[in-house]
Parts: sequence; C-alpha cells; structure tokens
Amino acid sequence: AQSSVTLFGIVDATFNHGRADGGSRVTQLTNSGYNSSRLGFRGTEDLGGGMSASFWLEAGISNDDGRAGGGIPAGNQATTVAGNTGLNFNRRSTVSLAGGWGELRLGRDYTASFWNLTVFDPFGTNGVGTNTMLLGAATLAPSGTSGVAVRASNTIGYFLPPNLGGFYGQAQYWMGENDDALGVGEDNGSGFGLRIGYGQGPFNVALGWQRTNYEGAGLDDFRSWNLGGQWDFGMAKVMAQYGRDEGAAGGATGVDGRGWLIGALVPVGAGEVRASYSEYRFDFNVAGAPEPRARKFAVGYVHNLSKRTAVYATIARIRNSDGFVGGPRFALGASSFAAGTVNGSSTGYDIGIRHSF
Amino acid sequence: AQSSVTLFGIVDATFNHGRADGGSRVTQLTNSGYNSSRLGFRGTEDLGGGMSASFWLEAGISNDDGRAGGGIPAGNQATTVAGNTGLNFNRRSTVSLAGGWGELRLGRDYTASFWNLTVFDPFGTNGVGTNTMLLGAATLAPSGTSGVAVRASNTIGYFLPPNLGGFYGQAQYWMGENDDALGVGEDNGSGFGLRIGYGQGPFNVALGWQRTNYEGAGLDDFRSWNLGGQWDFGMAKVMAQYGRDEGAAGGATGVDGRGWLIGALVPVGAGEVRASYSEYRFDFNVAGAPEPRARKFAVGYVHNLSKRTAVYATIARIRNSDGFVGGPRFALGASSFAAGTVNGSSTGYDIGIRHSF
Amino acid sequence: AQSSVTLFGIVDATFNHGRADGGSRVTQLTNSGYNSSRLGFRGTEDLGGGMSASFWLEAGISNDDGRAGGGIPAGNQATTVAGNTGLNFNRRSTVSLAGGWGELRLGRDYTASFWNLTVFDPFGTNGVGTNTMLLGAATLAPSGTSGVAVRASNTIGYFLPPNLGGFYGQAQYWMGENDDALGVGEDNGSGFGLRIGYGQGPFNVALGWQRTNYEGAGLDDFRSWNLGGQWDFGMAKVMAQYGRDEGAAGGATGVDGRGWLIGALVPVGAGEVRASYSEYRFDFNVAGAPEPRARKFAVGYVHNLSKRTAVYATIARIRNSDGFVGGPRFALGASSFAAGTVNGSSTGYDIGIRHSF
Repeated sequence: AQSSVTLFGIVDATFNHGRADGGSRVTQLTNSGYNSSRLGFRGTEDLGGGMSASFWLEAGISNDDGRAGGGIPAGNQATTVAGNTGLNFNRRSTVSLAGGWGELRLGRDYTASFWNLTVFDPFGTNGVGTNTMLLGAATLAPSGTSGVAVRASNTIGYFLPPNLGGFYGQAQYWMGENDDALGVGEDNGSGFGLRIGYGQGPFNVALGWQRTNYEGAGLDDFRSWNLGGQWDFGMAKVMAQYGRDEGAAGGATGVDGRGWLIGALVPVGAGEVRASYSEYRFDFNVAGAPEPRARKFAVGYVHNLSKRTAVYATIARIRNSDGFVGGPRFALGASSFAAGTVNGSSTGYDIGIRHSF
Repeated sequence: AQSSVTLFGIVDATFNHGRADGGSRVTQLTNSGYNSSRLGFRGTEDLGGGMSASFWLEAGISNDDGRAGGGIPAGNQATTVAGNTGLNFNRRSTVSLAGGWGELRLGRDYTASFWNLTVFDPFGTNGVGTNTMLLGAATLAPSGTSGVAVRASNTIGYFLPPNLGGFYGQAQYWMGENDDALGVGEDNGSGFGLRIGYGQGPFNVALGWQRTNYEGAGLDDFRSWNLGGQWDFGMAKVMAQYGRDEGAAGGATGVDGRGWLIGALVPVGAGEVRASYSEYRFDFNVAGAPEPRARKFAVGYVHNLSKRTAVYATIARIRNSDGFVGGPRFALGASSFAAGTVNGSSTGYDIGIRHSF
Repeated sequence: AQSSVTLFGIVDATFNHGRADGGSRVTQLTNSGYNSSRLGFRGTEDLGGGMSASFWLEAGISNDDGRAGGGIPAGNQATTVAGNTGLNFNRRSTVSLAGGWGELRLGRDYTASFWNLTVFDPFGTNGVGTNTMLLGAATLAPSGTSGVAVRASNTIGYFLPPNLGGFYGQAQYWMGENDDALGVGEDNGSGFGLRIGYGQGPFNVALGWQRTNYEGAGLDDFRSWNLGGQWDFGMAKVMAQYGRDEGAAGGATGVDGRGWLIGALVPVGAGEVRASYSEYRFDFNVAGAPEPRARKFAVGYVHNLSKRTAVYATIARIRNSDGFVGGPRFALGASSFAAGTVNGSSTGYDIGIRHSF
C-alpha cells in the first residue's frame, strides 16, 4: 500500500472553573475549551475522471489526563461503551467516493442537524460558552453522550457537490442494526437526517432536520430541526439559530424543547472577541406544568499567536428559571460540575491554549 | 530517535444483509467485507552486513462505528478482554531481527496454521464469503474471538529466508505465561506452530500445523493441520484446502472437525470474479452420533478503481445438515446474525468499498 | 491545519524469567526490558520572537501481546481505569508554550521527583534491574500503578530555560479536580512537585521533592524527596541516589520508607555494561516493629547494533530481610510473579531486543 496519510490534530488545554448556586464548585485543568482536542488520520486519492476516494479517522483525546477515545453508543442506542477507555475514532470514521455528482460517505459521522448548532455558534459548541440549544437537545436524545444530537454510527450519507452556485446540502441514513425478527425494537437507533443551505458572499443560512427511531416502554422518536445563519459585516460576523426538539425519553406525552441563539464574532487585531446569548425551554406537554428555561450569556477573547496556536479566555453565566423539583436544570457546557438548586445560576470560565498540527 | 515510520491502513465499509432460516435477519453498515479494516505503523532499519531490524504495529478498526481495537485473550487463554474498547495492536505487534539466516520475530502474530486458510481462500477469510474451515476451527479453539486459530500473543517466531529456491517456512512458539508453581494449568495457552511450503511460477502449496495446550476440567489440547495450494492458469487462479482440527472444548472424548475448500479467482478487465465452495463437518467421537455439517457457496466480484480503491459485491449461502438440537450450526462468516434452526440455511450479501493507504 | 508531526516510538521485546523463594515462577515474552515500549506523536512550532508552541502525546504499548495504553488514575486518586484497555496517552500528554523565560507545560506529565530515580539509575527503572527506590515509593502512593510516584494528570508545570550556566529546574502543580463543596476529600489527588539541579561537564546532581494530598479514613499525604547525581569518569559513569518517602496508606502513624542506590555504566566497544546495588527499608513508625528491608543487585549488558537497535541481557537478585507476616515483600521490578515467603529472595533475568523509530 502506497502511503498518503495526513496526520492531524488539536491539543487544547484549559484551566477551568465552574460553580453552581447550591451545587458544586470545580476547578480543573481540562481540555477542548476552544476547539475539541483530537488526533486524526486522513487522505484523498485521485481516481481520475473527476473521481476521488478518501478516508477520515478522527479520535477525541482528553489531553489533560492522557485518556483517549470516547463513548460510542452501540447501534446509536442508549447503551454506551464507557468513555475514555482507549483511542477510538468516535469523532469521525468514514470512507468516501466523490465525483461531479457529489460524495457518498459511509461510516460514523456528524449528523446533518448538528452542523447548524456549531457552525452558527460563536463558541462552536466548545467550552463553557457552548450554547443551550446543544445542551438541551443532548438531554432529549437517549443514546449516550450527546447521542445522535451530534453524531451517528453506521451512516450512509450523500453530499451535494460544492459547485452549485452557493447551494449545499446533505442527506443521511443511519442504522440501528437490530435483528428484524425482534419485532418491537427492530428500528431502535435507525434514523434519517437532512441539511440544506445557501452561502454566498457574506451571507450563509442553512436548515437541518433529523429523526431517530426509538421503540419500547417510555420511548418515542427523537426529532430535531433547526435553522441557522450568519451575516459577515466585516467588522463583525453576526449569527443566529432557532431550533425545536421532540424528545425520545419521558412519559406518555414526551418532553419537547426549543431554543434560540444570537451571537457575534468581532475581529480585533490578531484576535477575536466572541459573544453569544442563548435560551432553551423544555415543554412537558402537561397542561399547567412549568416550562423550565435556561438563559445563557457567554463572552470571550481568542488571541492568535499563529495560525496554529492561540490563547483564549471565556466567561459564561447560565440562569435557570421556571424549574421544579426533579425537573431539568442546566450547568455550563463542558464543565464537570453538577447543576445546583432549582432556578439557580451557574458561572464559569476557561483560560487555555489551543495548538493544532 | 530518527523517525522512519510507514503509516498504513485499510478502511473497508460494507452494506451487509444476512438472514437465517428460523433465525435472525440483520441489515447493517459494517466493515471489512473485502479486506480487514486496519491502521498500522511499521518500519525497517538496515543494520549493515545483510542484517535488518523492523517493527510492525497493526490495529483492527471498526470504521462503520468508529470503534477500534479488538479482543486480545490474556495469555492466549479463554478469558478475553472485551472487544472494541479502544485501539490496540490486536492484528500484529512485533519486533524482528533479520539476516541471511532468516528472521527472528517476537510479539503478537498470526499463527502459522492460519495462513493456508486465508491465502488459499478466494475471499481471504473476509466478509460473508469466509470459508467454513476457519469458521469451524474458530469454534474449537477456546481462546476468545477465533483464538489461536488466527493469532497468538507472546510468540517467538522464526522464518526461513526468502531465497531458498521456492521453499518457505516458519516455526513459532507461544507462551501462556502462567505461574509454573500452579501445577495444573501452567501450560494453558502455550503452543507451537509450523508451516512449510513451496511456490514456484504458477504453483504454490503449503502445509500448516499447530498445537495449543489447554488444561483443566473439560479441556484438552487444540490441534490443527491443513494443506492448501493454488495453480495460476492465467485465465483463472484455482485454489484448494483441506484441514483437520482436534477441539479443546467438549466432553470426555472431545469434538473434532474437518473441512475442505475449492475456489477460484478469475480476472475480468479491471476486476476479478471470486468463487468458492467449502464444507466443514464436526465429529463428536460418539458412536452413532450425527456429524453436523455445513456446506457453503460464495460468489463475488471486485472492481478496482485504482490499486488502492475497489468496490465489491459478494453473495453467499450456507446449508447446515446432520444437525441435532444443541449442536453446532453455522451462520455466514463476519455477519452478526444468529444461526437459525437445526439444518437451516443462511443467506447474505456484502456490497462495499475498500480504500487502502 | 498544516501537518508537522513527528511519529516516534520504541518496540522492546524481552524474554523474561523470574522466580521467588516459596513464591511463583514465571517465564514470559514481555516488553520494555531496556526502554519502555511506546508510540508517540509530537511537534514544535516556531512562533517567532524566541517563542514556540509544542505538543507531546505518548502512549505505552504492550508489544508482546498487542495491548496498548495503561491505567490512568482518575484525578490522580486511587480509583484506576483498568490497564491495557486501549491506546491512551498515559505516558505523556502535554501542550506547551516556551520562550526565553522558560516553558509552561499543561497536561499529564512525569512528576518532578521521579526524574532522579530514573536518570541516575543505570537501568532507568526498566526491566528486572529497576531500582528498589521506585518499587518502594510506588507501594506508598495510593493512586494506581506507580501513581504520582511517576506521573500526574492535570498538571500545570513550569520549566527553567536551558541556558542558566548549568542550573536546571521545574515546578509543577497537579489537580485532583474534586468538588470544592465536598469538604473532606476536596484536595484528594492535588499535589505539588519541584526539581532543581546542576549539570556541568562530567558532573550532574539534582534534588527532587513532591507532596500529594490524600484525605479520608486511613489516608495521609504522600511525600517524597530524593537526591541523585552522577560523575562521568569516561571509562565509567558512576551514579548514586538517596531518597525518603512518607506514605499515604497505612495506620494512624503511617508507613514511611527510605532507600539508596549506587550504580555504574561502563562503555565496552559498541556496548555498555550496567550494574547497580540498591536498598529500600520501610518504617512502620511503631516502636520495636521490624523495618522490612530489600537489597537488590543487578548487572547487565547492552549491545548496540545501531543507534536505534540494541540487544541486551540483565540479571537481578533481590533479598528481603527483617520482614514479618503480612508485611511488604519485594519481587523484581517489571516481572509479573508474586513475591515469595517472608525474608525470601527473588531472581530473574531479561534477554531482549530494543528497536526505536
């Protein structure tokens, strides 16, 4: 085999502190405050006639303590392999054939509906600034860490080619791989996702949608759709998102959620100021029940020492309201402290270094 | 340390379906339908005077869901580390010194007797086409996934040099690494393997043999020998195998097995048609007991888009006969559905992409 | 991301035998008899103005059986992830910024106090020759395999720049990352380390110190200090160490230990003779209690086939004395047999190949 591999990665270390009203207070050296730490292998082969083949194997790494890999739900379902038990390609693991007709991509990949949440978030769903829309959706998908709200295994994906006058899109099907003879449960973890967008000049907007099947007692489909966009004014890039989730877990009527975000990236010399405000609200579909809500504000600064190396700081505060005992409460994203009291707030910050290679 | 590493691998994704009479039906995106998916690191250093040192670290990857690594039985014995818990060099992990006298190789390696099963199988023991001789032998070796029927840890191996007028061969010793003070069980997992062959022009034939010790209640040695060969007629490469296994598991008298295969590879333009017929029969060494038998036919086509990239399809059918309740039944190789009813059949296919780097 | 990664590693395979009086006898193909087997990725980026950024990801590998990775204690505390469950960067996982002022290093790293134990040991704490000072200290630190006696997670480290007229040094802080709201136990696994040394011409000497906090029933701080040095006489490099440990485990008054080593490296043609004598003694801080003691002698020879490849042999014998039933007994380092009878001896040898890349 001729070798033609690009070895790439990111090592992002963060000094992080978070605390919740009546909850826990944690100070740690953690990772991925700006960009997710990773180690990957990828390559592309030109097959002639406009065709190419490529592969992408990307593993998450926990560089603060050396652990590697992450939990991968079996067949996209709730049973999870324990996280951090050794390097695996939990972030992405695909092989593709591409041509003028687009790209066929097979393997573990991001779900189409995740892209809007991260692309149109000034904090890219990393660190204490992670938006509440992802945090909320992740609690409603029953399959492991963030589950199919972020990635799915066993996907067959199709991507439109890049030369469609600004239009882009993808469709995905993922398989739960259960025994068809099972009857109930045979479709657990199977799902479908779509994303369609348009980007031209300073403008970019996209719509994402997904549905994953869950079957069994107290389980229903998990569905999400979201709309995100940005306008680059030069002196600032302004972003917005809106999305709705129908949860798979919960009682007879299920729990739903909806959220929105507005944010901006402001270039300042060799750096960038980042800010976002987001909100998420749960709906228990019970008349008169409160709808627990979280509101979050995050602001930060990234200073680029080079294209590959940056130092950064972020501070975020999240306020819970309309909560009830036993109901959902939000802590900051990517901080490992427990949420505090009902209707309590949480505050945290990251100070870190991001080095890519 | 001067770096001189070759990074290599294969990403093979397969759309697979299999079903068994009265058993399960599974549709999945899986891996390794044509060649086993892997990621590896290897290199050779010239030491002068005809001597060289080399290393080889090769990990299995499950690229359909991003999991990596595989189960490695501790000391070649039945206790298995759970599979897919993170990257490890389960496929091969060796360091070698080589010279005009041959090669000394230390570490985890293929067992000598496995080579005939895969080299002289048109499907190379991958995908639904995997021959019944490997499937049968794997059930008789008690040490984890396929056990010492395929690989052994803690091996000390010697390989003849490549310039012996067509003759080739290897000898291996592997260690169970038990406490000698144990008494019973001290040799569990220790074994020995040999392979000797002759290949010249269109002709190639080899004999393999191995014995692995198991001790304790209901355990006996696992022994295998096999003979394989091929003749390349240009328009077709014809292959055949015959082998016998004496099982380690089973009752007082033990269970044995024997099987054979005939197959062919036929070049067709940029592709290759593959076909094989194989049979395996268990012998319970009980007078009058039935001898459960499986007969399998597989046919497929591989289309090479380049030396590194191919698309392929395989279909296979296996028929069980002479079975009894509780006795062994075969499903297709490398498909994850359960075997069906006594004397039932199974059918399956693979459609996939193999990309190497 | 521009790629600029150095892929490096060591594959060291050892035929090893060890036996203890009244204990176990094990023969095995193991690893890391001369240098620890590993696979790593590292790189440095010049940021201009004397500044640089770098990363280092290094995993232990068990090349005799293909397993990879090692146990990483959660938050430097006694709970350990089971070893060898898949590749992780248990050996080192750091990102750094460096300049004329020194280096800031974040992540999992060696503890400052470990360096004297390995740098001034002719056997580098590898194989059967591993000195008793490390073996003793490792039993007194409660956090997994060798625990913070060797490495710590979540470290913030500072290293002096290299141009200080022979002076060198480092300071480290590591975090247990517990919830501050816990009260008791909130500092478990947090610690601090220092090392300061002077090396000029043939002379090199350094002092190391560390303290790790443990809280709870029967737990106290683990503290170590050690002093090591060497003088290179040309025909021989002579080394010596002395150190004391205050254990975290044990009764009301705790268990302490102290040890020393003297050793030499003698160049012989393309090879090197290695020899050391070391002693370690436990102090139970109970009047009249015996102080179990181990004395160890090791001698070996390394023959370099090239800069990257060597063959080696080591033989070691350890004598226990002043022991009592239930008290600590030493086996040889890095051999997997159980210690024998009270006051018994152990003997073992390594014969191996070390190949680096």
